[in-house]
Amino acid sequence: MRMYDLITKKKHGEELTRDEISEMIRGYVNGEIPDYQMSAMLMAICFQGMTEKETADLTIEMAHSGDMVDLSAIKGIKVDKHSTGGVGDKTTLVIGPIVAACGVKVAKMSGRGLGHTGGTVDKLESIPGMQVALKQEQFFEIVNKVGVSVVGQSGNLAPADKKLYALRDVTATVDSIPLISSSIMSKKLAAGSDCILLDVKTGSGAFMRTVEDSIALAQRMVAIGEHAGRNTMAVITDMDIPLGHAIGNSLEVMEAIETLQGHGPKDLTEVCKILAANMLYLAKKGTVEECEQLVKEAVENGAAFKKLVEMVEAQGGDSSVIQDTGKFRKAPYQYEVKSAREGYIRHMDTEQCGVASMVLGAGRETKDSSIDYSAGIVLKKKTGEFVKCGEVLAVLYASKEELFQKAEKILTNAYSFSEEPVRNRPLVLAKVSSGGVEKY
Amino acid sequence: MRMYDLITKKKHGEELTRDEISEMIRGYVNGEIPDYQMSAMLMAICFQGMTEKETADLTIEMAHSGDMVDLSAIKGIKVDKHSTGGVGDKTTLVIGPIVAACGVKVAKMSGRGLGHTGGTVDKLESIPGMQVALKQEQFFEIVNKVGVSVVGQSGNLAPADKKLYALRDVTATVDSIPLISSSIMSKKLAAGSDCILLDVKTGSGAFMRTVEDSIALAQRMVAIGEHAGRNTMAVITDMDIPLGHAIGNSLEVMEAIETLQGHGPKDLTEVCKILAANMLYLAKKGTVEECEQLVKEAVENGAAFKKLVEMVEAQGGDSSVIQDTGKFRKAPYQYEVKSAREGYIRHMDTEQCGVASMVLGAGRETKDSSIDYSAGIVLKKKTGEFVKCGEVLAVLYASKEELFQKAEKILTNAYSFSEEPVRNRPLVLAKVSSGGVEKY
Repeated sequence: MRMYDLITKKKHGEELTRDEISEMIRGYVNGEIPDYQMSAMLMAICFQGMTEKETADLTIEMAHSGDMVDLSAIKGIKVDKHSTGGVGDKTTLVIGPIVAACGVKVAKMSGRGLGHTGGTVDKLESIPGMQVALKQEQFFEIVNKVGVSVVGQSGNLAPADKKLYALRDVTATVDSIPLISSSIMSKKLAAGSDCILLDVKTGSGAFMRTVEDSIALAQRMVAIGEHAGRNTMAVITDMDIPLGHAIGNSLEVMEAIETLQGHGPKDLTEVCKILAANMLYLAKKGTVEECEQLVKEAVENGAAFKKLVEMVEAQGGDSSVIQDTGKFRKAPYQYEVKSAREGYIRHMDTEQCGVASMVLGAGRETKDSSIDYSAGIVLKKKTGEFVKCGEVLAVLYASKEELFQKAEKILTNAYSFSEEPVRNRPLVLAKVSSGGVEKY
Repeated sequence: MRMYDLITKKKHGEELTRDEISEMIRGYVNGEIPDYQMSAMLMAICFQGMTEKETADLTIEMAHSGDMVDLSAIKGIKVDKHSTGGVGDKTTLVIGPIVAACGVKVAKMSGRGLGHTGGTVDKLESIPGMQVALKQEQFFEIVNKVGVSVVGQSGNLAPADKKLYALRDVTATVDSIPLISSSIMSKKLAAGSDCILLDVKTGSGAFMRTVEDSIALAQRMVAIGEHAGRNTMAVITDMDIPLGHAIGNSLEVMEAIETLQGHGPKDLTEVCKILAANMLYLAKKGTVEECEQLVKEAVENGAAFKKLVEMVEAQGGDSSVIQDTGKFRKAPYQYEVKSAREGYIRHMDTEQCGVASMVLGAGRETKDSSIDYSAGIVLKKKTGEFVKCGEVLAVLYASKEELFQKAEKILTNAYSFSEEPVRNRPLVLAKVSSGGVEKY
């Protein structure tokens, strides 16, 4: 089998066999297949697509290109959650403790942020002392004891994905459903959980900009998960509005704490409830309605918040900042962005909100940038709300005053207005399982 | 401008501007743009195509990536001919002298053969003493004096094409009309002739296997030529039957001589007459009918044959072998391939005939293979003819007896038979000019 023949086959729209995909991934990872052949293959895949079976085969081969984490040392059912990236997405910080409080294990390996999206691991590091680089035994021990632990990705998870992603990134072959889904799912399969809940974001700040595309991506990922013997489901959530009000590391942790304590923003609370309930449902804790009730109780009786405190303590963090968020280090400067006009907020470009936050120091422009944990944005007005001229749209936080001007410009450009009232679409737009698609 | 953006643009089916194409070719040739980005671009072009303008821009940029040969030292109109490759294609050896005999200059740079197709330069080198690596001044001098000279490609002609072709060859991006036509035409434009006649082969032994594809390729090449200010036309000729009977270097030279003397095979004679007449027509020697008459006369009065003798002498060759082909070195072994069955020859796989000839030593398997000039095949029966069981299909020539077995097997497999009589299609199937397509 020659790579040339595989490219030709895919170019003509034919299905690659499991053996062909296996040889291709092996050859690419070990350097036998050069980048220039793989990039031609990736472009052919962008045009010809891949069948469900091909995508699943590709994903499984990518997962097996490196370490396959064995979570069997952790007792009970392990549920993983993955979000396809979003601005101000602090759901993991809320959901992990809730699910653990309901008796289902969450052994979560999470990434760092790059560009306009934040990483959960960065957010956790805004808590003084918090360790996210744990040895595997220590990680397993915490999950067994507390029920939840969130650490940085370690080891050699899906190296084929790392290499392929780097190539896709420079050859304009990112936006392909089989390639996106195999990239995400290869890491999820390698991470070892029994059940996988996917939170597929849709809208201006997300990979997939329409609900239809998001559903198609979700269906492909669910099919991969099921093909690999993992109980998998996806919810499609709106990314046309940033979730909650906070964007930036410690700002988001504070908002997650409020939400765990039952007084978080309505939209964030709602999305977290649905995601957590569906994770419990995947772990067979009851019907979705029963699981929603479990989530509600875990928040109301304080069990969920307690899990966060326990997790932070187990990972060496200072839990006093969790108990009293007033103890978080504050940004030395703050600045109010005021509306230059009156009207209803018609739309927010969430990607640009993320960029504004990055400019303030909350995110990384390149892999080597350092993060200012206290920097970021608290939105005071979001899509659908009415704003008077001069009213505060958002408050910016930074360690250097000179950053405000650029960030303000980006942020105000992210808002668009309307004379007419605006109706927001639902936060959760659809649910995708092996059984089919359920639209909301 | 980043290559990433150009790939994205082409992927979305948009037209690249002249500046973008220029930057891309420049960057690729000087190594700024890596192969893996170019191969993604090539695959996107395979799917999205290129407009006529884009293809012309690409071709002109590729031509200008190296030396542009200046033929102004040669007096009169210079006409070039290009064949898209074929098995047993010795037309250049016949047409060049005919056209020169009719007063139009042919300054032809030709390639070497690789794989199943032979190269004109290799064929010429089967003539003892023949020099094909001439200095430019010497080449021009011969064309001025004799009217025709055929030399090997020298200098740095269209290096962008060399680099792109090598990449296309390993990334399954060869079969794209804009890429094929820009590859061929960039070299033709760089070679400097005023008029270009393209002989686009169609059928089993050719790049383009259907007449429709061949016409599409021809139209694109004619458009490029006209766009670049060269008088360009194309004829679509059949490649489902090898042209003439001889395949192999000195065997083909001998057949070309017979044809120049007026007693060559009917099909070869016919195709050469049409090609030569159209070259004269491009050089404004009269109507096509008048030009056909000129060709006929040049053969009948011996002027065309005399031009071949003059050219061979001018290039240092031993013209006594041209005057008496019995003096060509003979292959020490010959072998008759006999038909194992009776019937009409329904089809011949010309590519496989070329492979059989290569196996006998007449062609190069790799760039570094050496050629046995006396090896090859003389076909005794071709498509449409009736064959009895045991009748000779072809005679094989080689310097080693042990090569016959493999070559015989390949050659007999290239023939397929029918119980019913078979009607051959015309040799020249269509003519393509800027005025339109004329089918025969």
